[in-house]
Amino acid sequence: MSVFLDNAATSFPKPDAVYQAMDAAMRDVGVAPGRGGYRQSLAAARIVFEARSALARFFGVPDSSRLIFTHSATESINIAVFGLLKPGDHVVSTCVEHNALARPLHLAKKRGVDVTFVPSDSCGIVSERDIARAMRPDTRLVALAHCSNVTGAVQPIAEIAEVARIGGALFLVDAAQSAGFFPIDVESIGIDLLAAPGHKGLYGPPGTGILAVGAGINLEPLQVGGTGGSASTPEPPEQMPERLESGTINTPAIAGLKAGVEFIEATGLEVIRAKESVLVGQLLEGLHGMPGVRLYGPLQGERGAAISFNAEGHDPASLGFLLDSTYDISVRVGLHCAPDVHRSIGSYPEGTVRVSPGFFNSETDIDYFLRALREIIS
Amino acid sequence: MSVFLDNAATSFPKPDAVYQAMDAAMRDVGVAPGRGGYRQSLAAARIVFEARSALARFFGVPDSSRLIFTHSATESINIAVFGLLKPGDHVVSTCVEHNALARPLHLAKKRGVDVTFVPSDSCGIVSERDIARAMRPDTRLVALAHCSNVTGAVQPIAEIAEVARIGGALFLVDAAQSAGFFPIDVESIGIDLLAAPGHKGLYGPPGTGILAVGAGINLEPLQVGGTGGSASTPEPPEQMPERLESGTINTPAIAGLKAGVEFIEATGLEVIRAKESVLVGQLLEGLHGMPGVRLYGPLQGERGAAISFNAEGHDPASLGFLLDSTYDISVRVGLHCAPDVHRSIGSYPEGTVRVSPGFFNSETDIDYFLRALREIIS
Repeated sequence: MSVFLDNAATSFPKPDAVYQAMDAAMRDVGVAPGRGGYRQSLAAARIVFEARSALARFFGVPDSSRLIFTHSATESINIAVFGLLKPGDHVVSTCVEHNALARPLHLAKKRGVDVTFVPSDSCGIVSERDIARAMRPDTRLVALAHCSNVTGAVQPIAEIAEVARIGGALFLVDAAQSAGFFPIDVESIGIDLLAAPGHKGLYGPPGTGILAVGAGINLEPLQVGGTGGSASTPEPPEQMPERLESGTINTPAIAGLKAGVEFIEATGLEVIRAKESVLVGQLLEGLHGMPGVRLYGPLQGERGAAISFNAEGHDPASLGFLLDSTYDISVRVGLHCAPDVHRSIGSYPEGTVRVSPGFFNSETDIDYFLRALREIIS
Repeated sequence: MSVFLDNAATSFPKPDAVYQAMDAAMRDVGVAPGRGGYRQSLAAARIVFEARSALARFFGVPDSSRLIFTHSATESINIAVFGLLKPGDHVVSTCVEHNALARPLHLAKKRGVDVTFVPSDSCGIVSERDIARAMRPDTRLVALAHCSNVTGAVQPIAEIAEVARIGGALFLVDAAQSAGFFPIDVESIGIDLLAAPGHKGLYGPPGTGILAVGAGINLEPLQVGGTGGSASTPEPPEQMPERLESGTINTPAIAGLKAGVEFIEATGLEVIRAKESVLVGQLLEGLHGMPGVRLYGPLQGERGAAISFNAEGHDPASLGFLLDSTYDISVRVGLHCAPDVHRSIGSYPEGTVRVSPGFFNSETDIDYFLRALREIIS
């Protein structure tokens, strides 16, 4: 029995339609959209257009041309941070960010942007009141992850969006762990910049990501080059999405991402979330009763699907090794690219064992994992 | 009969092994390298390691950790230009660059870098003597495309490398049209920074590119984030390739690129080049004799596989449309994201019709194209 419990790193397996869509796009279309006027190139353009429309619909983005394709959530965040911020700007973020946001903010700081990192409680949750207290007249951006990849902690983004709005700042949300798990409507929540990977909760392949850019926000491109059309000027085009999408578009991967989002829409996000919540509940209950096991993050209420723990007398790496080598169970151990979270919840520097179930796991998988863990630690 | 003659935009079809490798990586491996210590993640790491080794071998890069994976040649060039240049630096480039290099240089200029664009002859070829004349004591970089995507003109890169070396400047080569067509050994030629797409002559999928970074060259990352390991510092890691590869690696696409390079090695680059040269010769001969047809770029000698022409009394767009709609032949028309080339060869602003055969085209394909064109213009 092989059990994959590292869906917070990437969802696996993908719906079969994702594999099929990628293979068909490679074999039958293959070419680049906007790089030719012939039918095959138009077919590629149609895939990308439909994928853009599907994702815009999924996240409530009214103008799909303002949803750009990137190659990862990391790239999306970098485009947002460096495309927006100027020396002298102030940013409010938190002490529990993944390196995908923490490192760009740290680099922005070195370039003259001021950043306030607001601490969390011991579960990794940040209060909108603390965000409000950190706001200043020169605050240009409030930026944080919706849901933690270490603790599963969910931030009160609607309340924080309101704080940002009142303070005249834009709101950037890293939805790496929440896109495809929680419903996210950028307009009704008040998100100005939404970054999400394609290969986690959206079931697309690696090499895909999106950035939704609110109306009226003009980002400087992080990279420039050919965009198919508008070739005659030395400047990148003004119009979206081309302005932020230079170089050949990754059509086969985007075809896979489109199939992933269509899978979510056909299955129902609430169905996916309900199933994953059952598995998360089963894990929390099973781990909670285990002698010597310390759980991190929220134990009840709304939370994501990443669960971190440590077991007394076992370091995370050896637990992960035994789960893999003896039981063929894949979990992730260590800092999960988010050292600041561990500093906040008390698991630095050794990190944690992280279990992250996905829609394609079963309750049997979770039982098997809990049994395996019990055997190892007893 | 369907004939694809737009291989300068992307090679199509790919070797079947490329499709198979991508599908297998999606279905059987799926996960991210370096994001877990379990076997499936190690399998992903092995694919990426072997792909990196194969590409390093192919381009004569002695230390494979200095060959990084990007998502396009455009991204590779942007990393090289913005990772290296500081305000006050001087760059020597040419008047016949693709926007993938011309636009980053233009943006660098706006940020205080001085750039000299050296003109070409009417075929689009630049002289190393003109490059040498443009060199200054503060010249930090010489940057140009090896081969034009419009004219097929090949620059004397070995001679230019020598000019750069003598002048104490680094040498960046955009190999978008030459990688997988001409042998390129970075060490023996003297290339310090080599940028190439994965999806053209290397037969990989879109969403892949490489940048080879010479020993001792330290580039500032264009984007920062998680890299799997070295998570505890707010700075990106110092070690290569992680320093320049943040975010989840595109393993399935890299598996496809690995299969593409292995296809070239198994077939023999000289075999591929010989076949493509025959098709190019057949095209040049056929087009040369056609009444009212004006050919651009070098008519004989060493050249790439992109051939540009115009036919008197027909604009490029309508020729392309008729070739597609009536004959199912895919060519590209217009500026090909390289307006400066057209300004140099005299085809601005209308552009050209570009025919670019690939290894999977046959002489029958070329005959069919020439017959179709003759019918249209007569």
